Amino acid sequence: MKKFSHLSGEGEATMVDVSGKDATWREASASARIDVAGEVISRIRDELLPKGDPFEAARIAGIMAAKKTGYLVPLCHQVPLDLCDIRIEIHEDNSSISIFSSVKAKWHTGVEMEAMVAVSVASLTIYDMIKAVDRWATIGDIKLLEKKGGKSGNLKREA
Amino acid sequence: MKKFSHLSGEGEATMVDVSGKDATWREASASARIDVAGEVISRIRDELLPKGDPFEAARIAGIMAAKKTGYLVPLCHQVPLDLCDIRIEIHEDNSSISIFSSVKAKWHTGVEMEAMVAVSVASLTIYDMIKAVDRWATIGDIKLLEKKGGKSGNLKREA
Amino acid sequence: MKKFSHLSGEGEATMVDVSGKDATWREASASARIDVAGEVISRIRDELLPKGDPFEAARIAGIMAAKKTGYLVPLCHQVPLDLCDIRIEIHEDNSSISIFSSVKAKWHTGVEMEAMVAVSVASLTIYDMIKAVDRWATIGDIKLLEKKGGKSGNLKREA
Amino acid sequence: MKKFSHLSGEGEATMVDVSGKDATWREASASARIDVAGEVISRIRDELLPKGDPFEAARIAGIMAAKKTGYLVPLCHQVPLDLCDIRIEIHEDNSSISIFSSVKAKWHTGVEMEAMVAVSVASLTIYDMIKAVDRWATIGDIKLLEKKGGKSGNLKREA
Amino acid sequence: MKKFSHLSGEGEATMVDVSGKDATWREASASARIDVAGEVISRIRDELLPKGDPFEAARIAGIMAAKKTGYLVPLCHQVPLDLCDIRIEIHEDNSSISIFSSVKAKWHTGVEMEAMVAVSVASLTIYDMIKAVDRWATIGDIKLLEKKGGKSGNLKREA
Amino acid sequence: MKKFSHLSGEGEATMVDVSGKDATWREASASARIDVAGEVISRIRDELLPKGDPFEAARIAGIMAAKKTGYLVPLCHQVPLDLCDIRIEIHEDNSSISIFSSVKAKWHTGVEMEAMVAVSVASLTIYDMIKAVDRWATIGDIKLLEKKGGKSGNLKREA
Repeated sequence: MKKFSHLSGEGEATMVDVSGKDATWREASASARIDVAGEVISRIRDELLPKGDPFEAARIAGIMAAKKTGYLVPLCHQVPLDLCDIRIEIHEDNSSISIFSSVKAKWHTGVEMEAMVAVSVASLTIYDMIKAVDRWATIGDIKLLEKKGGKSGNLKREA
Repeated sequence: MKKFSHLSGEGEATMVDVSGKDATWREASASARIDVAGEVISRIRDELLPKGDPFEAARIAGIMAAKKTGYLVPLCHQVPLDLCDIRIEIHEDNSSISIFSSVKAKWHTGVEMEAMVAVSVASLTIYDMIKAVDRWATIGDIKLLEKKGGKSGNLKREA
Repeated sequence: MKKFSHLSGEGEATMVDVSGKDATWREASASARIDVAGEVISRIRDELLPKGDPFEAARIAGIMAAKKTGYLVPLCHQVPLDLCDIRIEIHEDNSSISIFSSVKAKWHTGVEMEAMVAVSVASLTIYDMIKAVDRWATIGDIKLLEKKGGKSGNLKREA
Repeated sequence: MKKFSHLSGEGEATMVDVSGKDATWREASASARIDVAGEVISRIRDELLPKGDPFEAARIAGIMAAKKTGYLVPLCHQVPLDLCDIRIEIHEDNSSISIFSSVKAKWHTGVEMEAMVAVSVASLTIYDMIKAVDRWATIGDIKLLEKKGGKSGNLKREA
Repeated sequence: MKKFSHLSGEGEATMVDVSGKDATWREASASARIDVAGEVISRIRDELLPKGDPFEAARIAGIMAAKKTGYLVPLCHQVPLDLCDIRIEIHEDNSSISIFSSVKAKWHTGVEMEAMVAVSVASLTIYDMIKAVDRWATIGDIKLLEKKGGKSGNLKREA
Repeated sequence: MKKFSHLSGEGEATMVDVSGKDATWREASASARIDVAGEVISRIRDELLPKGDPFEAARIAGIMAAKKTGYLVPLCHQVPLDLCDIRIEIHEDNSSISIFSSVKAKWHTGVEMEAMVAVSVASLTIYDMIKAVDRWATIGDIKLLEKKGGKSGNLKREA
């Protein structure tokens, strides 16, 4: 039966002991979505996109945060990443911005949290950049898409 | 007319120059919601709550992350906080966990981002703690609830 | 003959070169003690314990600090930990609080410093929480209890 | 009546809200002591002192850690320091090393924790440097010596 | 007579005590230059510039590092910045890349180090991005251009 | 043909995917030079050197920064170092100070950036210490001297 892995019998928060596990290849991907006012999208299209990628800062922020996951989320291990990649899509149809992360490491534990942190901090950075135009924008749908490797093997989110 | 405050005329990401602004009292509050499998809620109720607050680690993580906002979100200022408070509610009816933050500072700029970072990292920490039971749980509805102080004054999200 | 491993022939502080060593399993445990006014203990018992673990924040702080050891202690290596566990005991008889850490990693060097940092920062966090009642409380007896693995093998502190 | 300032009515760890307080001059000093084997002291005297200050790395580590206090101790505020000074004394008579810190800031809250963190991390760094000769050395007597400024005014530890 | 401000009478590294100084407006600007192989410049022009700013990551890195100055340079104060701006110029004529920073804060001490750190880390990031083509590129000419405010007033580098 | 390894086909900054590479021994060394006013050198010789190494703080700063490379330079991997050594030379003849670093790790990628960061931050720390005497001093000639290991093998800078 599954149990909450970070809580001891006494209800104390604990790290998972991964000392018995070998370092094997792990991958994880996650996504997030920011719902914004239509004005944000039209202005991104008209003012920003002609000058290059407006969200490079968000991609950089997400990559840097993924590397810091073990220092942000208290019970996460420090996992040296082999790759963190972030992709951002702008959707005019439903006034939203999608953020996707893909993370790899060879380690004793998975990189799901790193993928989740990457899209979260990239989203926060985009929100920071658009909030002067739409401070009520909402970040949502932060979710794991897929994981590979480790004891539970390869698992993909159902559509 | 509003403009994207973090982008220069050439489309480069820039900090907002707050050097002309006085330090005044600022407040902001934000919230987030994690949608989880019913099993997560029932087990929190039966196994965890009897032993104390299961999400103290998440509250601590959110507080610590709020203080690091300027080091996570590239264009944010380093704002020394006077308060960051986090409250977590467990909802049995719709199988969700709500996270609320409240942040205060006397500074040249607002603390909206600190409030948003606080609920995001607290949510990620809760996800980390429950993912062994429900790895497909979704974090969403990360949004600003209210801001006080500064040039734009006091503003509250409409219901 | 033993020598100060972090000092060169010229007296300059240096890291120990561990590049010739294989990664092997390492463990270390340490402890600390805070001597407090009797009032602190009685109020912990009467006011705090009924509500759950009052020192969860201290446990989290110790775990997070252990992971940062290589960034706090200048000549320590960055050791990715497989486990850091912290236990706190409250002693009514001699008005003290004991903190114990247990750390594991598979690495080129030992984790004694991580165990020492963990109990130190957990102790500082407890002091921070009680100092409004007893600012003259003293943290002491920070010491290594045991180490396992590595060239010097398994060693235990004599009682 | 005094109360535990970092715990809410529900027993949750919280930051102290200092938003109603003005920034005023604050000072604090603390000390720590490391008890070491006699061999450590004699070798410091014979091998290290002739080459300069053997513990400059410890002083630097203590200063840097004091600045990071708000990122190490979860409920501490981020206090920008105006000074952190560390002094180290070697005692041949009782085989010990004393560490003293002195911290100043103009802020809404005191700097006692910064002074305590400074001596703790300086002590851990010294321990790291001598542990190849005496791994059973003990760090202790970490205590506040004096605080100045703030609501409780100037207070000095009794001898 | 001028003296080394960070060294005590005993030759120990110390922070400068700025507790007697008022917070006043400070500005500083600095620059750096990277000398690269001609191939780097022609390929930046042909392959990268058509796609947008190739060095946005370097600008972000410089801004983020400026904010961390007090945690990188041991004796620097933690200065909350009101602005850090970075500009990068590519010179085809002499195969070089120039980096300029401009920093502002209202604080007890100047921001010269923040301006120097900003151009240094931006340069290192550019080097990291081009080193696959020219690993022997050289970073140089890191220098203060101007400072404003504080006791020594406004000073500008002679041409 | 060589290409810019950190830029995707769309011109976005990306980490290099090192997940296919084995961990092997890597070494790198780099150097930097600070050109200072003659007065700085004569006063270092007369006032500082008699008291011990005046630049121990700079050596410590360089070592600590090398360990943080992956958190400073956005697209660098987090590489746990086995050694970072820094050496500083004072040249009276041409009024300059030379800084040398030497870094080792067993990892999936090289440590060139760590060696470059080490000399850069050590140089910035020296500049910070001497700037009260010569604020117009210039840091330059930051360059890779040698790399060993990895796919491109051992390479040394030509004189």
